[in-house]
Amino acid sequence: MPRHPTAAAGRRLLTMFLAVAVLSVFVFAAAAAAAAEMVEAAVVEDAPSPHILPRPLVIELPTSTSSSLSSPALTSSAEVVDDDVPVEVRCASWRLAGEANNLAPWKSLPPECAAYVRDYLTGVAYRSDLELVAREASAYAHSTAAGDARDAWVFDVDETLLSNLPYYADHGYGLELFDHREFDKWVERGEAPAIPSSLKLYNEVRELGFKTFLLTGRSEGHEGVTVDNLNKQGFHDWDKLILRAPADRKKTATIYKSEKRKEMEEEGYRILGNSGDQWSDLLGFSTSARSFKLPNPMYYIP
Amino acid sequence: MPRHPTAAAGRRLLTMFLAVAVLSVFVFAAAAAAAAEMVEAAVVEDAPSPHILPRPLVIELPTSTSSSLSSPALTSSAEVVDDDVPVEVRCASWRLAGEANNLAPWKSLPPECAAYVRDYLTGVAYRSDLELVAREASAYAHSTAAGDARDAWVFDVDETLLSNLPYYADHGYGLELFDHREFDKWVERGEAPAIPSSLKLYNEVRELGFKTFLLTGRSEGHEGVTVDNLNKQGFHDWDKLILRAPADRKKTATIYKSEKRKEMEEEGYRILGNSGDQWSDLLGFSTSARSFKLPNPMYYIP
Repeated sequence: MPRHPTAAAGRRLLTMFLAVAVLSVFVFAAAAAAAAEMVEAAVVEDAPSPHILPRPLVIELPTSTSSSLSSPALTSSAEVVDDDVPVEVRCASWRLAGEANNLAPWKSLPPECAAYVRDYLTGVAYRSDLELVAREASAYAHSTAAGDARDAWVFDVDETLLSNLPYYADHGYGLELFDHREFDKWVERGEAPAIPSSLKLYNEVRELGFKTFLLTGRSEGHEGVTVDNLNKQGFHDWDKLILRAPADRKKTATIYKSEKRKEMEEEGYRILGNSGDQWSDLLGFSTSARSFKLPNPMYYIP
Repeated sequence: MPRHPTAAAGRRLLTMFLAVAVLSVFVFAAAAAAAAEMVEAAVVEDAPSPHILPRPLVIELPTSTSSSLSSPALTSSAEVVDDDVPVEVRCASWRLAGEANNLAPWKSLPPECAAYVRDYLTGVAYRSDLELVAREASAYAHSTAAGDARDAWVFDVDETLLSNLPYYADHGYGLELFDHREFDKWVERGEAPAIPSSLKLYNEVRELGFKTFLLTGRSEGHEGVTVDNLNKQGFHDWDKLILRAPADRKKTATIYKSEKRKEMEEEGYRILGNSGDQWSDLLGFSTSARSFKLPNPMYYIP
């Protein structure tokens, strides 16, 4: 907390002034682009020729790190039409495509989106997105609970119950390639904060009588630190914490998690809800009656 | 096209000036909110109490038209934390939640998001979102085509190949409840424009040798006008146009479309790609190897 309110207020005013100045320039550019766009939209577009563009980076996926966002700049064709789209809009499209499961596997952020993703995660939008998903999940939980001890809700851990934002803040918010050893060191500190809207949902579904299964890609070796971290952050009394055994290590998350959900079904549970920040938490087989995709533009797990 | 370039330039300058003025006010508000947010973030949040909030509108879903966005204002609890989230951010969260299939069924836009959705659809962001999904689909199509005459790609029609934006512009962009009779009149005019990025993708997958199946919720009575409209907009030589028969009328789109995809599989086709603006185009059974969700914040079809 700031110790000198007057100095803090001054800094805040300065920040606001700078934001206005910077954003005004952007607004001018955007307005000009929008004007150009309107003129362009007035011209009925011809059908594009079916000529197939060379798209080396796109076809190299999933090892490409920058996905299709880079391809327009790498082609020489006049058919590429999004040179007039501001970078913020392109990056918003990229984030949306990820959340809608439209992207091919990716290993790190498109470099041009590093600042956009940082601003999204550290601003109000990420929190708002998390809260809306939690509210939808909560409304559904209230409407669907049968209350007969067979109801089950599955929660992923990282970026679902706990946030690794402090780690990713030090590693470019997904711009750097994932480093297992560095990330393990962070996990072993046991200091990942709770995502507040997820903690609220967790407590609500428990109050409604759902069995709560925590299904994580973390390895069994991290069981102790994960239990401690969850408890310290207010998560208590789950029914089962399932971590990745050595035998699961080579499976994709989709397969590993589907197999574990299948076991829950075989034990008689009815999986009504599933919350996760990766599509691999939610898809596959033995899927939940309804799934809730929490936002995560930092990394992709197949 | 404007006949008087000087007058047009003047109007464009005026538009830009007004945009700067209006947005500067918003930027001030956003900066203030962000400053407040930073201070708030510095305080470690306590675990929220597990008390369950009364959420009358949420629990009334799916007949509620405004979904959970309305519930915070209707509760009296101090636990509701998003009063400080600007309406644009709340509406962006709502749109994202729809695209990620997190929302319960909804019948019309949250009223507070009417201006946001209009601006999204008429600005550069909607086009950018459409283009990115088409590029991802194109890259995938190039990488996956087997070229043995069994490859198939399924396209939805409305808001996927053809755009009904001119109709929705006259009906609040989804704010008004859907009116079958009015919409049918629009369909029967046969004047829906092509979505350019979809036309390009359509031609690409045809060039790659995919069978193209157009699978629409339009009724068989609209076959003639749909064929004419598609042809007029540059879509040619599809392998099959499947419309809803009287027997399919009471099925959800998810079931109707799954059944039709199952028939394709039984005829020996390998459904590799599926493009649609509704999750009911993509989910269910006999799903495609990969699906592409085009953006649509205007309406929801179960």
